[in-house]
Amino acid sequence: IQSKLPGVGTTIFSVMSKLAAEHNAINLSQGFPDYACDPELVKLVNKAMKDGFNQYAPMPGSAFLKETIAEKVEALYKIKYNPDTEITVTAGGTQAIFTALAAIINAGDEVIIFEPAYDSYAPTIKLLGGLVKTYELAPPNYGIDWDMVKKLFTAKTRMIILNTPQNPTGSILSSDDMESLIKLVTGTDILILSDEVYEHLIYDEQKHQSVMLYPELKQRSFIVASFGKLLHTTGWKLGYCLAPEKLTKEFRKVHQFNVFSVNSPMQQAIAEYLKQPKNYTGLASFFQKKRDYFRGLLAESRFTLLPCNGSYFQCASYSDISDEKDTDFSMRLIREFGVATIPVSAFYQKATDHKIIRFCFAKEDATLAKAAEKLKNV
Amino acid sequence: IQSKLPGVGTTIFSVMSKLAAEHNAINLSQGFPDYACDPELVKLVNKAMKDGFNQYAPMPGSAFLKETIAEKVEALYKIKYNPDTEITVTAGGTQAIFTALAAIINAGDEVIIFEPAYDSYAPTIKLLGGLVKTYELAPPNYGIDWDMVKKLFTAKTRMIILNTPQNPTGSILSSDDMESLIKLVTGTDILILSDEVYEHLIYDEQKHQSVMLYPELKQRSFIVASFGKLLHTTGWKLGYCLAPEKLTKEFRKVHQFNVFSVNSPMQQAIAEYLKQPKNYTGLASFFQKKRDYFRGLLAESRFTLLPCNGSYFQCASYSDISDEKDTDFSMRLIREFGVATIPVSAFYQKATDHKIIRFCFAKEDATLAKAAEKLKNV
Ligand SMILES: CSCCC(=O)C(=O)O
Ligand SMILES: CSCCC(=O)C(=O)O
Repeated sequence: IQSKLPGVGTTIFSVMSKLAAEHNAINLSQGFPDYACDPELVKLVNKAMKDGFNQYAPMPGSAFLKETIAEKVEALYKIKYNPDTEITVTAGGTQAIFTALAAIINAGDEVIIFEPAYDSYAPTIKLLGGLVKTYELAPPNYGIDWDMVKKLFTAKTRMIILNTPQNPTGSILSSDDMESLIKLVTGTDILILSDEVYEHLIYDEQKHQSVMLYPELKQRSFIVASFGKLLHTTGWKLGYCLAPEKLTKEFRKVHQFNVFSVNSPMQQAIAEYLKQPKNYTGLASFFQKKRDYFRGLLAESRFTLLPCNGSYFQCASYSDISDEKDTDFSMRLIREFGVATIPVSAFYQKATDHKIIRFCFAKEDATLAKAAEKLKNV
Repeated sequence: IQSKLPGVGTTIFSVMSKLAAEHNAINLSQGFPDYACDPELVKLVNKAMKDGFNQYAPMPGSAFLKETIAEKVEALYKIKYNPDTEITVTAGGTQAIFTALAAIINAGDEVIIFEPAYDSYAPTIKLLGGLVKTYELAPPNYGIDWDMVKKLFTAKTRMIILNTPQNPTGSILSSDDMESLIKLVTGTDILILSDEVYEHLIYDEQKHQSVMLYPELKQRSFIVASFGKLLHTTGWKLGYCLAPEKLTKEFRKVHQFNVFSVNSPMQQAIAEYLKQPKNYTGLASFFQKKRDYFRGLLAESRFTLLPCNGSYFQCASYSDISDEKDTDFSMRLIREFGVATIPVSAFYQKATDHKIIRFCFAKEDATLAKAAEKLKNV
């Protein structure tokens, strides 16, 4: 059998989480919390199941949840999305990304991505017959020179994938970035897929620059959001996609034949839970404390910390410690020091190696402290 | 924006369920139960959430659930599938179908389907650049003349989609069908996607002819199964795909970038629940009683009932009642008589109209009785 994705193995997140378990290592690799979600939320799921929300939800999502999403978005960003025609509930952020690409990309279409990048973008584009055009971000700041991005444009450019706050680098886009982007796309029919799953995790009083804040961008954008990141429930696999009606229409055509609809009792519970704004605010300060705590602990190590403006990922260079490839180094961290991380080369198609690894700090302080103890010995 | 699926609207199931709600009609359209699932199962989900199964499950599915699936399959069919390499848990049967097609179909590949067919097959194939080759089954028995199927074969034939028990017709494949199919595919590299989501719903002591029972078929087949149908929880959106290692490998490459992984607490709960074989047997007799009850009720109506050998769907001809198109007739049934059904033309790309509608009988006896009262007036 001829593979449609010959170069693709198992995602680095599965590989590392599996190795972490096998070596009984502290798992700071895959991005998920090691503490409990709010018990109130669990109670609401239980109630929804008892209330009989166990059959197909409506294909685009429960009306109650879509309305609650619209209210949350308006409360946070003062932007309106129509729940009927512009909001679709998905089985997580990744499914929203896949579905938006599948709805838009034809064979030969070019998609611009910024690397290091979440590892689903490139293979999904290729699976659909699209071509990946890559802009490589440079450490330590991972900033974008938009004139260089413009050089990647051709007549075949169909889409640009943004990701702010960015996984794995923790960098964020500024309003200047957005203004530069607006200049680039105005007058073209280039679409934007904006992966904003870490929208709530942004630090030091900075403001999340959602594409929805810029009408010229909003009208051409699929915005992907995640309840797993918001509610500390990555295993529930729920998220959503915001897009203007003409894009949502195409998105749903694929969505209905991909997953049809998504988990009904959990949609009901999340809608109930998010009725209270206190349940979706406060996340930035919660994670900023963890970031600061973890950075403080690692200050005593030989790792060089990169900036972290958003997301729950902290990148660090180990070039003062070793010359090894980042894949080898992270393997050794697991085996010899009992800490699992992600080698950042996994986020580049060419496995570009800057000797940087990624830690996930969405963990109990005790977990972070234990990990730091081990990392100080490296 | 140019649509990749220009002819596609909203699935008939969403349209009809929505209309049913708007007209306060009895909903025998979309296939889902109107009674509660086993409270024991709800308790197990609640326990799993409290036990902390709220973060990413392993990408191919929880090890516990995959082992339980292997045990169930072996108990029912005496066939072994390796949980590590041949079983993948999915976000429902539809996602398994989409993912298998996305993993295999290249532009220009031909896929043979039997119509009337579940409405995701054809658009998914087209979305991937494939060509749909259609064999039209004829009422009332919807049997297959395999010599005619053979005429659809070309050098580009990549896959055949089977569906037994069949949605919407309730017909099933026999061992003779399977032997004919074996003759057709032996010596070719044609693959099979076998949609067996109604495997447990088969009546009158007949035996489900899974492709796994035939080594020549098993080695080239993706088999799609559904927990929603097994456990009366269509809204939980969980299913799985069985396939030999070389096919599972390709399946998972796409799965990991489509949904990544699926609902963790529900996987844990279902695994626990299915440890007890009594929880997955007895479904056939449960639904056979409903079939017989509903058929008995409709015997007094002017509808002509078609055979129903499997699934929870009963098809009926209304040609003694009206000359209307089935879409018009089913609209009138909702508006004037308060019963929602599915016009079977929705299962044909060309909307072939045999004046047949589909009822779902996965409903409380009281619901079926109330619906029949109304249908007797038609
Ligand atoms: C979908 S698994 C990966 C989780 C995540 O976003 C990450 O670790 O980068
Ligand atoms: C996925 S919605 C449709 C449910 C079903 O299988 C049917 O009604 O045919």
